[in-house]
Amino acid sequence: MRVIFNEEMKAVADDLDRMAQDVRKAINGAGDALLNADIDKAQAVIDGDIEIDALESSVIDQCVHLLAKQNPVATDLRVVVSTLRLAATFERMGDLARHIAETARREYPQHALPEETREIFAQMVAFLRVTADRLVEMLADRDTKIAETVIIDDDKLDQLHHKTFDIALGDTWTGTRQQLIDVVLIGRFLERLGDHAVSAARRVVYIVSGFDPSKDPGRDEDTPVADL
Amino acid sequence: MRVIFNEEMKAVADDLDRMAQDVRKAINGAGDALLNADIDKAQAVIDGDIEIDALESSVIDQCVHLLAKQNPVATDLRVVVSTLRLAATFERMGDLARHIAETARREYPQHALPEETREIFAQMVAFLRVTADRLVEMLADRDTKIAETVIIDDDKLDQLHHKTFDIALGDTWTGTRQQLIDVVLIGRFLERLGDHAVSAARRVVYIVSGFDPSKDPGRDEDTPVADL
Repeated sequence: MRVIFNEEMKAVADDLDRMAQDVRKAINGAGDALLNADIDKAQAVIDGDIEIDALESSVIDQCVHLLAKQNPVATDLRVVVSTLRLAATFERMGDLARHIAETARREYPQHALPEETREIFAQMVAFLRVTADRLVEMLADRDTKIAETVIIDDDKLDQLHHKTFDIALGDTWTGTRQQLIDVVLIGRFLERLGDHAVSAARRVVYIVSGFDPSKDPGRDEDTPVADL
Repeated sequence: MRVIFNEEMKAVADDLDRMAQDVRKAINGAGDALLNADIDKAQAVIDGDIEIDALESSVIDQCVHLLAKQNPVATDLRVVVSTLRLAATFERMGDLARHIAETARREYPQHALPEETREIFAQMVAFLRVTADRLVEMLADRDTKIAETVIIDDDKLDQLHHKTFDIALGDTWTGTRQQLIDVVLIGRFLERLGDHAVSAARRVVYIVSGFDPSKDPGRDEDTPVADL
């Protein structure tokens, strides 16, 4: 039983690794699409989301099969239940990257973002590129140090996100109402990508340490709108 | 074993029912807070979110315990795995209602929404009040007919959501940039509440029928930004 469990769990872990890699690709592609008004990159992200969705289905099926046939307990059970949650998180990250790519595609050949906001969005994207690399590495190595960095660093993304509102409300704003709508939504999507990365990092901490991050009072809190 | 499983599963189902009832209360309270600039209702929603979070933790713990001790298979396993997912969905709906309440609290004693958008937001809130009633009933009775109504009807909420953008971009708009930001974010939160209701409804269909709604191509799609 043990050997079968380990073999089957390895296959699920491989799929989850692939999901993380696909999410990284989607984040990088959406960032390029957004910052460079690159329609090909946008289309690739939109098309690629189907693979992420398919991987989630595959991971769920394998986990349900494992639960039924192997009756994992203790750490093994923790891994399986957390894997279900991680797959849902990555699936949602794929959707968010797709939404950003769709906005870039809709505005092409124009930029979706007005000029005065591009620098701050470039910083948000750069932050998430680093986060995406960390997610892949964290997952492959079950590295809680990297996971903790992802959790702690998310504040920086929130601060950048707040700055987008400062610009949108400031005297130098020249954008149209449509651009303001896009700035708000794209900012929200990027911020949520960061929140989901934190959620994934907490799951990895839980798998490795057994400490349930869902009991951390700071869990999955996205930036309150009250703090705009 | 069977008797114990049924007894324990009944306790989880009761917690899940309470979550749905709490989410309904949160949606109704957030709607009142938003439409009537009611600070007491806003505060109640914000404070009440803690109970929803605690219920999710309790549901997860009970499901993990059940998986470890009872090794459910077939329909029982489907119920436990879907319960984990439903709890996560309701927890998120509580967050979204809280965000709306926080926006209302921040703007109090002003209305968060400019006058010309209030009618359309009142329609979105009215839609979600009906949806929240349906969620509670659907869950208590495992009623797939109600679940299907929730799934089909979500288009209406998306149409209302699109209208908020029409107003924000139209000639009659008189709001400030801050109000435009709030209109975009609150609209997004309300639309996501509808998406999560659809996701919960699909889980109930899955529990009852065994048809996996995650393989439906239309799954968990929130409105593409491209369709604004």
